[in-house]
Amino acid sequence: MKTKKFCLTERQMPAQWYNIVADMPNRPLPPLHPVTREPVTREQLSAVFAEELIEQEMSVERFIDIPEEVQEIYRIWRPTPLVRATGLEKALDTPAKIYFKNESVSPAGSHKPNTAVPQAYYNYKQGIRRLTTETGAGQWGSAIAFAGRHFGIDVEVYMVRVSYDQKPYRRLMMQTWGAQCFPSPSDRTASGRAALAKDPACSGSLGLAISEAVEMALQHPEDTRYCLGSVLNHVLLHQTVIGQEAVAQMEMADAEPDVVIGCFGGGSNFAGLAFPFLRKRLTGGNPVRVVAVEPASCPKLTRGAFRYDFGDVAGYTPLIPMYTLGHDFQPSDIHAGGLRYHGAGAIVSQLLKDGFVEACAIPQTETLGAGILFAKTEGIIPAPESTHAIAAAVREALQAREEGREKTILFNLSGNGVIDLYAYEQYLSGALKDYTPTDAEIRRSLDRIA
Amino acid sequence: MKTKKFCLTERQMPAQWYNIVADMPNRPLPPLHPVTREPVTREQLSAVFAEELIEQEMSVERFIDIPEEVQEIYRIWRPTPLVRATGLEKALDTPAKIYFKNESVSPAGSHKPNTAVPQAYYNYKQGIRRLTTETGAGQWGSAIAFAGRHFGIDVEVYMVRVSYDQKPYRRLMMQTWGAQCFPSPSDRTASGRAALAKDPACSGSLGLAISEAVEMALQHPEDTRYCLGSVLNHVLLHQTVIGQEAVAQMEMADAEPDVVIGCFGGGSNFAGLAFPFLRKRLTGGNPVRVVAVEPASCPKLTRGAFRYDFGDVAGYTPLIPMYTLGHDFQPSDIHAGGLRYHGAGAIVSQLLKDGFVEACAIPQTETLGAGILFAKTEGIIPAPESTHAIAAAVREALQAREEGREKTILFNLSGNGVIDLYAYEQYLSGALKDYTPTDAEIRRSLDRIA
Repeated sequence: MKTKKFCLTERQMPAQWYNIVADMPNRPLPPLHPVTREPVTREQLSAVFAEELIEQEMSVERFIDIPEEVQEIYRIWRPTPLVRATGLEKALDTPAKIYFKNESVSPAGSHKPNTAVPQAYYNYKQGIRRLTTETGAGQWGSAIAFAGRHFGIDVEVYMVRVSYDQKPYRRLMMQTWGAQCFPSPSDRTASGRAALAKDPACSGSLGLAISEAVEMALQHPEDTRYCLGSVLNHVLLHQTVIGQEAVAQMEMADAEPDVVIGCFGGGSNFAGLAFPFLRKRLTGGNPVRVVAVEPASCPKLTRGAFRYDFGDVAGYTPLIPMYTLGHDFQPSDIHAGGLRYHGAGAIVSQLLKDGFVEACAIPQTETLGAGILFAKTEGIIPAPESTHAIAAAVREALQAREEGREKTILFNLSGNGVIDLYAYEQYLSGALKDYTPTDAEIRRSLDRIA
Repeated sequence: MKTKKFCLTERQMPAQWYNIVADMPNRPLPPLHPVTREPVTREQLSAVFAEELIEQEMSVERFIDIPEEVQEIYRIWRPTPLVRATGLEKALDTPAKIYFKNESVSPAGSHKPNTAVPQAYYNYKQGIRRLTTETGAGQWGSAIAFAGRHFGIDVEVYMVRVSYDQKPYRRLMMQTWGAQCFPSPSDRTASGRAALAKDPACSGSLGLAISEAVEMALQHPEDTRYCLGSVLNHVLLHQTVIGQEAVAQMEMADAEPDVVIGCFGGGSNFAGLAFPFLRKRLTGGNPVRVVAVEPASCPKLTRGAFRYDFGDVAGYTPLIPMYTLGHDFQPSDIHAGGLRYHGAGAIVSQLLKDGFVEACAIPQTETLGAGILFAKTEGIIPAPESTHAIAAAVREALQAREEGREKTILFNLSGNGVIDLYAYEQYLSGALKDYTPTDAEIRRSLDRIA
């Protein structure tokens, strides 16, 4: 009998997060204040984020304790299984061994609760009563709704109107967990009202939703803070529970990955799996390859520039040193909504610049095709985002077959696609299109960075 | 640290199914041929079902080996976790300990694949190339689509048209796994065409969809068979992996249930959890209570009669000895589509008659309220069907609080509700209604049994 799943006990769940900054040869440059262009201070950030999260954002400590209250909620779904994809291997007739870390088993169906829970916890500890945030496709909004509920914090989610109308299941999930979900632009904020005055039928954007959520937090400093589901250092930090578990599970499987793969939007699921493996490499251990997979329609890692740029469209956030396509780059309306972000986080950008991370861009017709193959062979319907990691794993496995050599591949199944099945319908009906920006489009967008 | 989840290793997964018939003081009466009213023979059934499944349907062996090929696919999601519902306990402020078996973690999101996989396997072994079946809300259809894919068997699902139109996600799930899904009535069968001729806008019923699926199988005896997701003995048999795992996991938790609870449609998730515990009682062990929970709108166990009755509306199936509301009883259109069935399986009916099983009926406003509480405290959004088991567990826990005594409760979380979130929307908006049939309605329906 070939073991299929490698499972840890609750006692083997990591008790600390791993902060890769401690091991980086070149630490990321500091974020800059949007107006003064000086490094932002803790004080400036504290109007927006909880204190403890700012500490973590700036920390250079190698390990940070996970509070017992957070671990208790993690145990609802963690440790997650590491799975040998024997069905996929067989279908590809490959000598490669393929493993995946299954983060789709969380209540919200993705890796997002790994950071939603500590973010809600630290805000709760500080006496914050309300969290505001934005969401595109809704994975992050539902994760923070779930997390807020556990600490009795009210959650207000500004959801891009086009998704709010098209994806009612994610909204219903948030409401079932007790969160309030508003279509953005809304009439609750000045930025929302301005957008509606300009165009009453405005379908919204992630950048505008961020503006609404931040504005709401700034207006209620006594009891409200803002939170974000990716990009930032503390978010990546929280996700390292994924990779730490996977390191232990690969040891159980008596295997060592040659390549570790994650899909890439803001960087959190990728970093969560990859950083604990990259630690071994940074500290002189095995030469594991680490691959970030982005959609061909939003190719910041492979075709963007390394610049200081804003995190949002309107330019309210600090300037972050990152690979970017320009903060007002408008990615095509692909199905992997979680990967439609113009920039990468500061840590991953530095690691890419320094050659510790590889990147590749794959069009969505190829990724969804790989997703269907995975659904048929491994039984789990993957999120459109996660199909990017699967497609890259398939490429690696087919290359191993061509070269007739063994290879051990590990990828992150960041979420399931049960609420995203329309993407598969489009693929199956042949209606799915690919979009690739031209060099001129990217250049123009980069030129707009102030 | 209180342990939250009790997990078995793959090697601890049961290697046999448990057949409770071997331990019943009164075995169930035989099914009768719909025309001759004589006990049906293996030969008569073999036009519809695979041979090995007919053997299991009639078996009195206590244990039946699970083929290695089936175990291999079970290992995609099994063993499933047993979870201590600490969050729910805290919210109810109860001295009771509440555990649940989490069957919602399967690829299709419910317990249904436990029987879909062996049914597909035995048909495949017999050289069958195509399986037909019906589905209401779609849980069963998606499970058999998943299972058929693994053995290269084509799957044709006849889905009640009103659900086909209203629940596109389940249909898309089936199609993603490669099954064909037709709205019923369809123009592919004589029974479908007859219904459409009578009413071109006919919205269908489960009974009609059964007729279409059975007809399709009967017309292609060379390579096609029919399959069913509940009610029958062999289906309940396959589900006993649930309870066997739970028996071992309760031992890990050093606990013994006082009451074991499952929601009840045709009986498969209920029997799957309860029978291995009931075995202890039937063989002189602990006096565990076993409770089947049905919707107040479809109260066959609490208000039906013990009769020979048909499994379908049209009267094509064998007559089964069961608690029934009459085979053309029309249950209200409640959200727990999987519980809208007029009769109970033969084994459970006999056990209820003999006092080994208790039954209770709960209205859906109470069950969905319990479902929301569960989603908020335990993080998992339960299927509307499963909320019936949760509501009964909540009643037991509140009774324990009133009486100030300890009690150990175990229930089956048969599925998740991610694709059924509209039920929660209706509940949250106050639009959800309860329906209870009158005594006269039930009497009239029972009088129509020939």
